[in-house]
Amino acid sequence: LALVEPKLRPTGGHPVAAPSDEGAVVARIERAVLERFGAVPEGEIWIGDDAAVVAGTGGPLVLATDAAVAGVHADLELVSLGDLGWKAMAATISDIGAMGGRPLYALVTLCVPAGVDVDQLVAGVVDAGRAWDCAVVGGDLSGADQVMVSVAVTGTLDDGSLPPVTRGGASPGDHLFVTGELGASAAGLRLLRIRRTLGTDRPTGPSEYGAMDTESDAALVVAHRRPRARVSEGRAARAAGATAMIDVSDGLSLDLHRLAVASGVGVELVDVPVARGATEEEALGGGEDFELVIATGSPQRLIGQFERVGLRPPLRIGRCTSDRAQRTLRGGPLVLAGWQHDLR
Amino acid sequence: LALVEPKLRPTGGHPVAAPSDEGAVVARIERAVLERFGAVPEGEIWIGDDAAVVAGTGGPLVLATDAAVAGVHADLELVSLGDLGWKAMAATISDIGAMGGRPLYALVTLCVPAGVDVDQLVAGVVDAGRAWDCAVVGGDLSGADQVMVSVAVTGTLDDGSLPPVTRGGASPGDHLFVTGELGASAAGLRLLRIRRTLGTDRPTGPSEYGAMDTESDAALVVAHRRPRARVSEGRAARAAGATAMIDVSDGLSLDLHRLAVASGVGVELVDVPVARGATEEEALGGGEDFELVIATGSPQRLIGQFERVGLRPPLRIGRCTSDRAQRTLRGGPLVLAGWQHDLR
Repeated sequence: LALVEPKLRPTGGHPVAAPSDEGAVVARIERAVLERFGAVPEGEIWIGDDAAVVAGTGGPLVLATDAAVAGVHADLELVSLGDLGWKAMAATISDIGAMGGRPLYALVTLCVPAGVDVDQLVAGVVDAGRAWDCAVVGGDLSGADQVMVSVAVTGTLDDGSLPPVTRGGASPGDHLFVTGELGASAAGLRLLRIRRTLGTDRPTGPSEYGAMDTESDAALVVAHRRPRARVSEGRAARAAGATAMIDVSDGLSLDLHRLAVASGVGVELVDVPVARGATEEEALGGGEDFELVIATGSPQRLIGQFERVGLRPPLRIGRCTSDRAQRTLRGGPLVLAGWQHDLR
Repeated sequence: LALVEPKLRPTGGHPVAAPSDEGAVVARIERAVLERFGAVPEGEIWIGDDAAVVAGTGGPLVLATDAAVAGVHADLELVSLGDLGWKAMAATISDIGAMGGRPLYALVTLCVPAGVDVDQLVAGVVDAGRAWDCAVVGGDLSGADQVMVSVAVTGTLDDGSLPPVTRGGASPGDHLFVTGELGASAAGLRLLRIRRTLGTDRPTGPSEYGAMDTESDAALVVAHRRPRARVSEGRAARAAGATAMIDVSDGLSLDLHRLAVASGVGVELVDVPVARGATEEEALGGGEDFELVIATGSPQRLIGQFERVGLRPPLRIGRCTSDRAQRTLRGGPLVLAGWQHDLR
């Protein structure tokens, strides 16, 4: 089992090679909820996917929440407070996108120690909201020992006659695509760490990425600090009848594994698109690229829909198989790599 | 200016007598949002009230979020993890109730250090959700140095032809009511502190409130540990044409001041209903009772509506006046007391 360099959670997480009960805790939370609320209503999706989908009172709602904690999801010696705020918002919007939904409204909780520059944090949050037309309509503010940003987004599904795209709908034979090259965020973090070792100053604002050696290095750092949510891609995939979808938040290998488990399929990868300047290890286990993994039985329809709405063509990475235990890459084993929180 | 004993924020807050910029920070956040998103759409309410009200795609949505941070909002030597979870959920649902809304769905973010009993935390969250028919449909889980629960609730307004009840709609002459006696939460905390000083064990579960001296003491401790949101009361007030409403989360004096500022009115109190076993100081400045303060030009209509739906009659506490600077209680000055976060 290959381990990538600890990437996103320098203090609070560990690679999946080490035992973790994050998945077990989520399963127990789901049981506790179902004990109190009975079965999930027909057509709704509660705990366990990228986002929840509920009936609402006037049409379906897509609901997602994500937190970004300083020292866990980001190292404030390497990225700015604005980057932390941007990441919390982008990660939550990405979860809405991974169901094929469209974000509408965000609530933001800021927990900050005294003296923290709240304005910089807020600027990152609202800039990301603006980038995906998700209005920041309210929030809460609290003191704390550690900077923590929690974002909750209410979204919608635009064409109610189509179902949301869950993690669990893929069938053997479905083709697997990804919306872009992977590993840029992990590679950007690697470069920032090198820069720190070399003694360059801590970044203070979104435009001060410092003097990197080349344009592609600068692009990797931007990918780490200001990741993009693939909302248009998710909506296009849903419109094209995608059978399953998940966003790459913890690592392609781990997130693809989650899709495979939920769908009851195996995975046979033929290729992993690696971002320029990143390694294949970073592409497989780095996480936080927020590209979407899409399964479909109609690859031409998916490609055609992306073209129709002016998106970059999705990249084919492999197929789903009927052997649920299969995890292969170019005929060899696909190592399980990625990040989980340590809650033991 | 009278100061109450630090109540809810043993580490992170301070009484309003000391300078705080919580209000100023919220105002700057509002400006940052409006810079990116332009004006708030007609009929919507964004930042600055108990909850946001937005158009949605199929009818109005009421959105609120609240966090509970260990060491700030609750002392885990005095209350359980379940109590902390309950409080985060009850406080958020109370915000929905304070607009006259009805909670529907909750998302819950749990940030916990390794080794914390997440199940106990979750039990408090889902028990409170069950108490007000608010389904816990999703969430996020993260490592952190400090226990933090953030809840976001999506709710609705049941009769779309009536407006939500904001903080800002009261007029001079309107009568002021409160939905119940105040100060019970602060008094319960006082009793728990006395019990700790006397060496009684730390509570571990919701039913283990320990042997208090009298039934009313036990009731005060329950009020502190398991506060109730007044959703039915808020809906009844809206149905009866209430002009303004706010929940008592930081202290009657401070929350009433917020309503008065938002409405542009003065406040003339004739009475403060004090919970049995609490002091008037606790009732005025203690906070977290989550009773609703209601302004109305039609007191008989309000009382009649409460009676019709089987609620305890609201308690009259005074009137709104045209002198915006007025804050009086029984003819003397009404001291500004309550809690704000220290973000300097």
